[in-house]
Amino acid sequence: MAQTRVQHFSISLDGFGTGEGLSQEAPFGHAGQKLHQWMFATRWGKTMFGQAGGTRGVDDAILRTFDVGIGAEIMGSNKFGYPGWQDDAGWDGWWGEDQPFHTPVFVMTRHKRAPLAMEGGTTFHFTDAPPAEVLAMAKEAAGGRDVRIGGGVRTLRAFLAEGLIDHMHLVQVPVVLGRGQRLWDGLEGIEQRYDIELTPSPSGVVHMMFTRKG
Amino acid sequence: MAQTRVQHFSISLDGFGTGEGLSQEAPFGHAGQKLHQWMFATRWGKTMFGQAGGTRGVDDAILRTFDVGIGAEIMGSNKFGYPGWQDDAGWDGWWGEDQPFHTPVFVMTRHKRAPLAMEGGTTFHFTDAPPAEVLAMAKEAAGGRDVRIGGGVRTLRAFLAEGLIDHMHLVQVPVVLGRGQRLWDGLEGIEQRYDIELTPSPSGVVHMMFTRKG
Repeated sequence: MAQTRVQHFSISLDGFGTGEGLSQEAPFGHAGQKLHQWMFATRWGKTMFGQAGGTRGVDDAILRTFDVGIGAEIMGSNKFGYPGWQDDAGWDGWWGEDQPFHTPVFVMTRHKRAPLAMEGGTTFHFTDAPPAEVLAMAKEAAGGRDVRIGGGVRTLRAFLAEGLIDHMHLVQVPVVLGRGQRLWDGLEGIEQRYDIELTPSPSGVVHMMFTRKG
Repeated sequence: MAQTRVQHFSISLDGFGTGEGLSQEAPFGHAGQKLHQWMFATRWGKTMFGQAGGTRGVDDAILRTFDVGIGAEIMGSNKFGYPGWQDDAGWDGWWGEDQPFHTPVFVMTRHKRAPLAMEGGTTFHFTDAPPAEVLAMAKEAAGGRDVRIGGGVRTLRAFLAEGLIDHMHLVQVPVVLGRGQRLWDGLEGIEQRYDIELTPSPSGVVHMMFTRKG
C-alpha cells in the first residue's frame, strides 16, 4: 500500500523548520546551515555536493531512505524558491544540475506555470489545488509508489492538519533558533494519531519517526 | 564547586513547560498529567505517592538525582501555587505532608510573607529580589551544596537568560500541547553555551542534559 511520507525534515529544539528573513542568498534565513549541518557531514550529503568522505552512521543510513520507494514529491512554494520567485520567469528551483528528485514534483503555488522538465527525470508541475487534490494527482503520477511531502513548514503543517501523512521523519537539531516558521503551531494533540520512535545520533540530532496508528 | 542545577523539568515537543488555564484544580492547565506521566510510572514516582511498584529504568535512575547534593531550591510563584494563591493566606504550597524538598526553598514573589517551616526540613522563604540576588541567598543557605532551580517556565527562562544555570536536565515528552508557557522563548542561540547530551528512554521521553561549557 503506497504511503504519503515526510523524509528528514529538520527542526530546531524550539520547533522551527526554517529561520526568519528568507531570501535568494539565505534560503533558510538567519538559520543559515544550522538545521542541515548534520546532513552535510554524512557520506550521502557529501556525495550530493560532489565531495568525498562523510560519515556512514545512523544519519547516513536514514538519509539513504530519502528516495526509497518514492514516486513523486509535493512541495510548497517556499521550498521551491525564495520569496518572490513567482515574479522571476527564469527561476527553476534551487537544485540546478543536482536535482535530487528524479520524479514528478508538484509545486503548490497560486502562480501557475507550464510543467518544467529538468535533468535526471525531475519534472516540476505547478498547481493551485488544495492539499488533498494535489495528493491525489501525485499518487496518480507516482504509479503505485510513495509520495514524499517535501516541505516547507506551511505545507507540512497543512498536510498534517488534514491527516494526510502516513509516516513522518523529523530530525530535531539541538539549536534554539528563536524565530522563523514553527512546525507544531495548530497541531495540538497530533501525537495521539502516531506511534513515535526516537533515535538519537552521535551527531547530536534526534531522529523522530512518526508512524500513523493502524 | 557548587552548581546551580535544573532537575527533570518536563517540556512538550513544542517546548511548553505547562499548559493553558492554570488553576487550583488544574496545576498544569489543559496539559493535565501529560507532561509528568513518565515520572509517575517510575519506582521513584510511585514511592512519592505512597504506592508500590514502578519502573527501575533510566527514568527512575535519573529521577533519583533530584536531591543528590542539593542544599536549597529556588522556585517561581507559578510553581508554588495556583494563580491567585497570594490572596489565600492559608496557602502553603501543593505538597502538604509530602514535601519533596527537605531544604530551604526560596519562592520568588512580589507578595512577601514570613518564612514558612514545613515538615521534613523544608522552609519556604518568600522574596522579591531579582534572580542573581536570590541565587546568592540560596547558595548561602545551601552551605556549599548545589542549588536547584525548580521552575516554573518563567523562572527557568529568567535564570537561563542571565546565564546562571550550570547544569539543566530537561525531559522532552512526545506530546504537542499547542499552548501554554514555552520554555525557549527569548533564548535564541543558547545551545552555544552548553554541551548537550540526549538519552531517549524506552518510556518515550528524551532526557536532555545541558552542561555549561568550561
